[in-house]
Amino acid sequence: MPRSDGREPQIMRPVKIKAGVNPYAEGSAMCSFGRTTVLCTASLEEGVPPFLSDSGQGWVTAEYAMLPRSTHTRTRREASKKGRAQEISRLIGRSLRAAVDMKNIEGYTIRVDCDVMVADGGTRTASISGGYVALALALGKIGVRPKETIAAISLGKVDGVLMADLAYDEDSAAEVDLNLVLTRNGELVEVQGSAEKGLFDPAELSRMVELGFAVSKDIFSAQDLALGQKD
Amino acid sequence: MPRSDGREPQIMRPVKIKAGVNPYAEGSAMCSFGRTTVLCTASLEEGVPPFLSDSGQGWVTAEYAMLPRSTHTRTRREASKKGRAQEISRLIGRSLRAAVDMKNIEGYTIRVDCDVMVADGGTRTASISGGYVALALALGKIGVRPKETIAAISLGKVDGVLMADLAYDEDSAAEVDLNLVLTRNGELVEVQGSAEKGLFDPAELSRMVELGFAVSKDIFSAQDLALGQKD
Amino acid sequence: MPRSDGREPQIMRPVKIKAGVNPYAEGSAMCSFGRTTVLCTASLEEGVPPFLSDSGQGWVTAEYAMLPRSTHTRTRREASKKGRAQEISRLIGRSLRAAVDMKNIEGYTIRVDCDVMVADGGTRTASISGGYVALALALGKIGVRPKETIAAISLGKVDGVLMADLAYDEDSAAEVDLNLVLTRNGELVEVQGSAEKGLFDPAELSRMVELGFAVSKDIFSAQDLALGQKD
Amino acid sequence: MPRSDGREPQIMRPVKIKAGVNPYAEGSAMCSFGRTTVLCTASLEEGVPPFLSDSGQGWVTAEYAMLPRSTHTRTRREASKKGRAQEISRLIGRSLRAAVDMKNIEGYTIRVDCDVMVADGGTRTASISGGYVALALALGKIGVRPKETIAAISLGKVDGVLMADLAYDEDSAAEVDLNLVLTRNGELVEVQGSAEKGLFDPAELSRMVELGFAVSKDIFSAQDLALGQKD
Amino acid sequence: MPRSDGREPQIMRPVKIKAGVNPYAEGSAMCSFGRTTVLCTASLEEGVPPFLSDSGQGWVTAEYAMLPRSTHTRTRREASKKGRAQEISRLIGRSLRAAVDMKNIEGYTIRVDCDVMVADGGTRTASISGGYVALALALGKIGVRPKETIAAISLGKVDGVLMADLAYDEDSAAEVDLNLVLTRNGELVEVQGSAEKGLFDPAELSRMVELGFAVSKDIFSAQDLALGQKD
Amino acid sequence: MPRSDGREPQIMRPVKIKAGVNPYAEGSAMCSFGRTTVLCTASLEEGVPPFLSDSGQGWVTAEYAMLPRSTHTRTRREASKKGRAQEISRLIGRSLRAAVDMKNIEGYTIRVDCDVMVADGGTRTASISGGYVALALALGKIGVRPKETIAAISLGKVDGVLMADLAYDEDSAAEVDLNLVLTRNGELVEVQGSAEKGLFDPAELSRMVELGFAVSKDIFSAQDLALGQKD
Repeated sequence: MPRSDGREPQIMRPVKIKAGVNPYAEGSAMCSFGRTTVLCTASLEEGVPPFLSDSGQGWVTAEYAMLPRSTHTRTRREASKKGRAQEISRLIGRSLRAAVDMKNIEGYTIRVDCDVMVADGGTRTASISGGYVALALALGKIGVRPKETIAAISLGKVDGVLMADLAYDEDSAAEVDLNLVLTRNGELVEVQGSAEKGLFDPAELSRMVELGFAVSKDIFSAQDLALGQKD
Repeated sequence: MPRSDGREPQIMRPVKIKAGVNPYAEGSAMCSFGRTTVLCTASLEEGVPPFLSDSGQGWVTAEYAMLPRSTHTRTRREASKKGRAQEISRLIGRSLRAAVDMKNIEGYTIRVDCDVMVADGGTRTASISGGYVALALALGKIGVRPKETIAAISLGKVDGVLMADLAYDEDSAAEVDLNLVLTRNGELVEVQGSAEKGLFDPAELSRMVELGFAVSKDIFSAQDLALGQKD
Repeated sequence: MPRSDGREPQIMRPVKIKAGVNPYAEGSAMCSFGRTTVLCTASLEEGVPPFLSDSGQGWVTAEYAMLPRSTHTRTRREASKKGRAQEISRLIGRSLRAAVDMKNIEGYTIRVDCDVMVADGGTRTASISGGYVALALALGKIGVRPKETIAAISLGKVDGVLMADLAYDEDSAAEVDLNLVLTRNGELVEVQGSAEKGLFDPAELSRMVELGFAVSKDIFSAQDLALGQKD
Repeated sequence: MPRSDGREPQIMRPVKIKAGVNPYAEGSAMCSFGRTTVLCTASLEEGVPPFLSDSGQGWVTAEYAMLPRSTHTRTRREASKKGRAQEISRLIGRSLRAAVDMKNIEGYTIRVDCDVMVADGGTRTASISGGYVALALALGKIGVRPKETIAAISLGKVDGVLMADLAYDEDSAAEVDLNLVLTRNGELVEVQGSAEKGLFDPAELSRMVELGFAVSKDIFSAQDLALGQKD
Repeated sequence: MPRSDGREPQIMRPVKIKAGVNPYAEGSAMCSFGRTTVLCTASLEEGVPPFLSDSGQGWVTAEYAMLPRSTHTRTRREASKKGRAQEISRLIGRSLRAAVDMKNIEGYTIRVDCDVMVADGGTRTASISGGYVALALALGKIGVRPKETIAAISLGKVDGVLMADLAYDEDSAAEVDLNLVLTRNGELVEVQGSAEKGLFDPAELSRMVELGFAVSKDIFSAQDLALGQKD
Repeated sequence: MPRSDGREPQIMRPVKIKAGVNPYAEGSAMCSFGRTTVLCTASLEEGVPPFLSDSGQGWVTAEYAMLPRSTHTRTRREASKKGRAQEISRLIGRSLRAAVDMKNIEGYTIRVDCDVMVADGGTRTASISGGYVALALALGKIGVRPKETIAAISLGKVDGVLMADLAYDEDSAAEVDLNLVLTRNGELVEVQGSAEKGLFDPAELSRMVELGFAVSKDIFSAQDLALGQKD
């Protein structure tokens, strides 16, 4: 049961993150997991949403969208407004907020836009992993450092085999699909597992979580490299 | 650190499910977890969505909404159209589809509406747990039995303590919020954990999953009772 | 030409109004006319709409919607946004405003939500009649009494016979459909008669108005009972 | 208590209806009640709405809108989409359908557009009265005659006095506002009375209906003149 | 290759502009180019858009829409919201702003509504030409004079022949369609030429511009006449 | 009066077009004019819009949008739905249709998406120039060649000086803004000139057109290079 690109099940695709790709954004990164590619820009704006006024806190939020031809066949632009894209936008926002102490960015809102250039599975995990780099660069503009380093990885069970970083064809065929957002320190930020076409038991969940932490090292390395290049 | 209703951390609120509460729906149930109350109706319709035509399969889908005064202060109706409600609708739909063999309902679509009458935490888990009963009744109208019994339960970490079935005030204060959809046979359908305000490690995840399975017995009992009353 | 439930033409269905059914709303009532059932909640909010600022007056407004499976076959949620529901919302709002001296609620807006649980004809008249009870309870929270007691009743001409409180099957077949909103003191607040499929002459109008006042006694009794229970 | 234009209470404003004002429409009429002016066009189209397919019937429907500067101060175009305009559109549609035997227009839909050029009170009654002329002309294109002649008139109680055909300033001040749609044969099609700021008793209702029939003679005369001019 | 109304190619249709046609608007004009007819109203409002606050300037803007039966077959109202109508609205707004020194109307916004009564080609040029008259009248209400006189004219190449003021049937058949907005002093404000079905060379462009200035004299004369009548 | 990047007035910025940048699209190109960068993808789909069914023709259409951080400060995504973006989308569509004989693509629709990565003036002209390359590649997939080579260029009058290919700061300050779409053979497809803040005479128009043809050679060369690289 080989993978379409010949990878072993527990190996993730090549991770590349290039920082500073946009001339205007306070932080930006192009992040790819194999063929999947996401442009992440972080915009630093003065002001906070109404529910945070006079709270002594800032805010981090995110928007996720797919370019029409990021997909094998063209996707209508309107689809980016729909529920699935909004759900992913909220996931990215929550994940990136875990990286920042909101008191350190009082008076600021940072908007991270994740626009998918090529979608071959794992667009939300590449968005979070690249979005972290864009966010860190924007934080640097106001002299703030992240409190946690954040990455995200997908795992799944395909034909009964646990796999890391599913490509599009694998994701479509998976019995179980699990997305993890995690920190370099070994803690979890988000766990989203779904088994519409199959089921999974607690032991399988534990093994997928373990595998996720193992492969996330590749992402943290690529983030380090990208952020080091900018210094 | 007592809970507001005096419960022990590992205990869920009283579960009540009353079947057959709507005179027109093919299946219906009023489900309450403590004060939280959700009206679930299952509508059996002929026909399937376009993407399933000629597939030999039927479909199950769900819609979740809150009545304006289900909340402490009134919520505007428009909010039910927004992303959060859609995200929960999709979660309920995926969860209930895991209960049915789609080949057994070829040519039919079952729409499960979950309308929250009173929202005191756990509205999505009460929706899934009550929605299962409405769905099972509607399936019975065409002589089909579910392939799995499905329930849902929320867990959380509040002030460092793991708790089951969080009420609204607890949910607002939780560092970690985990929703599990699970089967009576001990398997997982959905895992959605979020730790925006804190983090959790793999061991804590395992303990929460274990607790979820333990307390779900109360829900399965209430479902049995509701479905037995109808026979 | 018997009615489907065996009633005499000039008799209305059993009226039941149960107050205090919602734990959060300042006023609430479940109102049924036979099988037709409407949940009415009154929300007392500080502040008035912009057009009333500095007017020395408060405001009462209403929203009407149907739950998807209140109807024989499922109605799409979007339908509740459309013109018919808005027209009924405005009718309910105007009717309930006639019950209150706006100067007595200066600085407050009371929003009455009428959500139809079961629709078997007469949903707008049950909404107004039950909404009055929810409104009166909310007024009581700020020590204000209604200036008028308000009820609503439908009348119609079916196969040439004048009838009170039409059920769904009668309403669909009626040549003339008349909704009256009236006070306990014998005055009219709203008259809405429509005869798309037939016509009616001024004498028939007078007889229907007379019948409406006669049967409204049942509604006023149920309102009294509901409000007395709360004291 | 004189009226702003010096009329006696029981007199309506000058009625003028000019037919054939649009070069493309199958029927058209410019109808004015005093300064209030409405352009009515009837479009005859092949085909019927889905709910009437294979019914052996045709359909008549209407749309009402106000030009931005029909009002004293400019009204935003978006307002024409809102509930009030839709409610009036439906009223006009029902009223005009009462003029036609739907079996005689099998296979056709007639759309009557009522666009208010100048709004000085009574725009819905002028729309129905002028819309009847446009409709009759369009019917003539397929050799069909109306089964009833339809007109509409507003009445009101202002400072306790019953008045016919209220102008804008009178309408704003009225305790009771009643719109009647009626036939030349003395029957009623629609009765819509509202007394948000006052109340009215059954005897007042009867007197207003009587006055409405009396003044409607002016409208029927103007309709005759307009339709005769075209022959 | 005669024109449908027998005109020579370089001749425009009869231009008629009648000022003061609306009782409420600060300026108004009914403008016709042959059968094409547009109602233009100018509304003078206090206040400026947010981007001009404290700028020492006022603003002029425009909205263009078509009545449903301005066209040979009925056009749905929703179409007026779409891109084409918005594009024409912006063109009219830019054109009319060229007529006014914004410093002279500090604190005011003038909204020019152009509602097409009959559409037989050239609706945007008739809108601008008539809109200028409505605008000039509204400016007069605050004692301001336009700094430029503005008119607009369409030109085209039909079957290889250059023509002025295309009617609908000519516009549909044109290889090249050019709209000019120009001043009485011989300068250009807007040039919009499109040759989807053919192409044109720079020399043809020059000849069309020359022809546009020549025929615009008819429009300036009609504007003078309309504005003189009002003095 | 030097230009911000030191260019002579009659010189355009460096043009770069890279073909084949998207793995899924039938044609794609990244086109930059200086810092301005647009991703163009052409999607070849079977089927034509309803208005062309049974016409023996195919169709080419375009959509233009800006990524949120293509601009100096972030632009909200919703802005891409608005009138300006739609107007540019239509301009691109018309321009690209002039390149293709619609009879040669019978049964196909080609959608060209132009997504602006960086906006520094001239985004619509870079979209058309790069969109041509994407279109030509997609045509090649069905063995069709363009009938015309199409490019677009902006010109303007800034402080009285005619300039080619305006950057953002120049565009904002321009008295006259002219966009030309033209063919390699010296003919015009579209002329869009606007002079809201100034005016221009026919002689200036002619000189700008001449300059546009001169500088377009750079674009045609870049297109040739991009398309040659693919062969």
